[in-house]
Amino acid sequence: MDKVVFFDIDDTLLDTSNFAKIAREAAINAMVDNGLDLTNEEAYNLLKEIIAQKGSNYDKHFNVLTKTVYGEENYKLIASGMITYHNVKFALLRPFPRTNEVLIHLKTKGYKLAVISNGITIKQWEKLVRMNLHPFFDKIITSEEVGFEKPNKRIFEEALNAMNCSSENSIMIGNKFKEDAMGGVNAGMSSILVNSKVTDEERKKIIDENINIQIIDNIDEVDSIL
Amino acid sequence: MDKVVFFDIDDTLLDTSNFAKIAREAAINAMVDNGLDLTNEEAYNLLKEIIAQKGSNYDKHFNVLTKTVYGEENYKLIASGMITYHNVKFALLRPFPRTNEVLIHLKTKGYKLAVISNGITIKQWEKLVRMNLHPFFDKIITSEEVGFEKPNKRIFEEALNAMNCSSENSIMIGNKFKEDAMGGVNAGMSSILVNSKVTDEERKKIIDENINIQIIDNIDEVDSIL
Repeated sequence: MDKVVFFDIDDTLLDTSNFAKIAREAAINAMVDNGLDLTNEEAYNLLKEIIAQKGSNYDKHFNVLTKTVYGEENYKLIASGMITYHNVKFALLRPFPRTNEVLIHLKTKGYKLAVISNGITIKQWEKLVRMNLHPFFDKIITSEEVGFEKPNKRIFEEALNAMNCSSENSIMIGNKFKEDAMGGVNAGMSSILVNSKVTDEERKKIIDENINIQIIDNIDEVDSIL
Repeated sequence: MDKVVFFDIDDTLLDTSNFAKIAREAAINAMVDNGLDLTNEEAYNLLKEIIAQKGSNYDKHFNVLTKTVYGEENYKLIASGMITYHNVKFALLRPFPRTNEVLIHLKTKGYKLAVISNGITIKQWEKLVRMNLHPFFDKIITSEEVGFEKPNKRIFEEALNAMNCSSENSIMIGNKFKEDAMGGVNAGMSSILVNSKVTDEERKKIIDENINIQIIDNIDEVDSIL
């Protein structure tokens, strides 16, 4: 039976947290330049609040921001923010070093590859297509399509189904302890945690309970273990 | 010993001829918009003459164009042309359908991959890096670096040396009959001609002289023969 490696996208394949902060700051600067009546700092803090409330996958943060300030949407300002955000985002978006080499390595070893991502389907495809990484993956499974987010077992089961493989022959690679690593393990896979902010407590749990999770610094080490 | 597949870039891996024409026309429009005293048609024809004279790898076509018209370089117009050319070029640049899948297939079959390209080193790297294709290739060999252009045997010999492989274990894939296909064969490789404007005469020569060249429509068929 095929062996399958499932990847998370954000902060696993692609360096997304870094660009998001820079892109948001640039977007706020552009909105203030175009007449938003707040200081850059006030506007950025308000945006952070809105993102915390609505979630990072909500796609109308700038609409809410102008509505909060003016009582109605201001489309000049929304457009200034959106355009700048997208220009900066796609200028900065990049795979981690050796992401491609690791994917090539896994293909040469006979693994099938797929993606399991919490996020909006079109946004996740957009990132993969822009980076020209999509041809490596047989399936891209998103929480939006499936209706369940990692660590819910259902999204992993849908992914195993889509790839027609058993959980014992599958490996989940991601940067989040609960969503990716534990999610994968609870669905019967083994997991590799990369680029993570795993706590000492979580490390202890993995050892004490003999949980099938390997921790490595970065995706560039995956080809030394698979 | 390693088997190596050498690829040409322009019109083999990437669809470059199509974007070049559109990008040049857009550049000319921008120059005329910014005050160039010619009609769009006159300016485009003059640009075509300059490209024919200087070669497509020369990097100061727009400088020559303004000098021809005004007796001196006009940097406002040169910048208008250059910026538009580059914006359009990189908006349109794309691998052919299934280029990535074919490269992944070849890696899974154990082939090493490299590039042999007539062109300016930085420009060829720029295209591969923008398309995120460079991680597939162990070496990128350009005529500018080697000092000889395909079909000169020397560039193929340098490439074989760089990859530490024998010509019998090597395959050259490109879109030009003389430069790529015959060049490879004359260096002892077998060749695959893709996406080519091969003439009936050339087809006859291949058959009559039993030359080691396979002709296929497009790179997307490579994985059906290798």
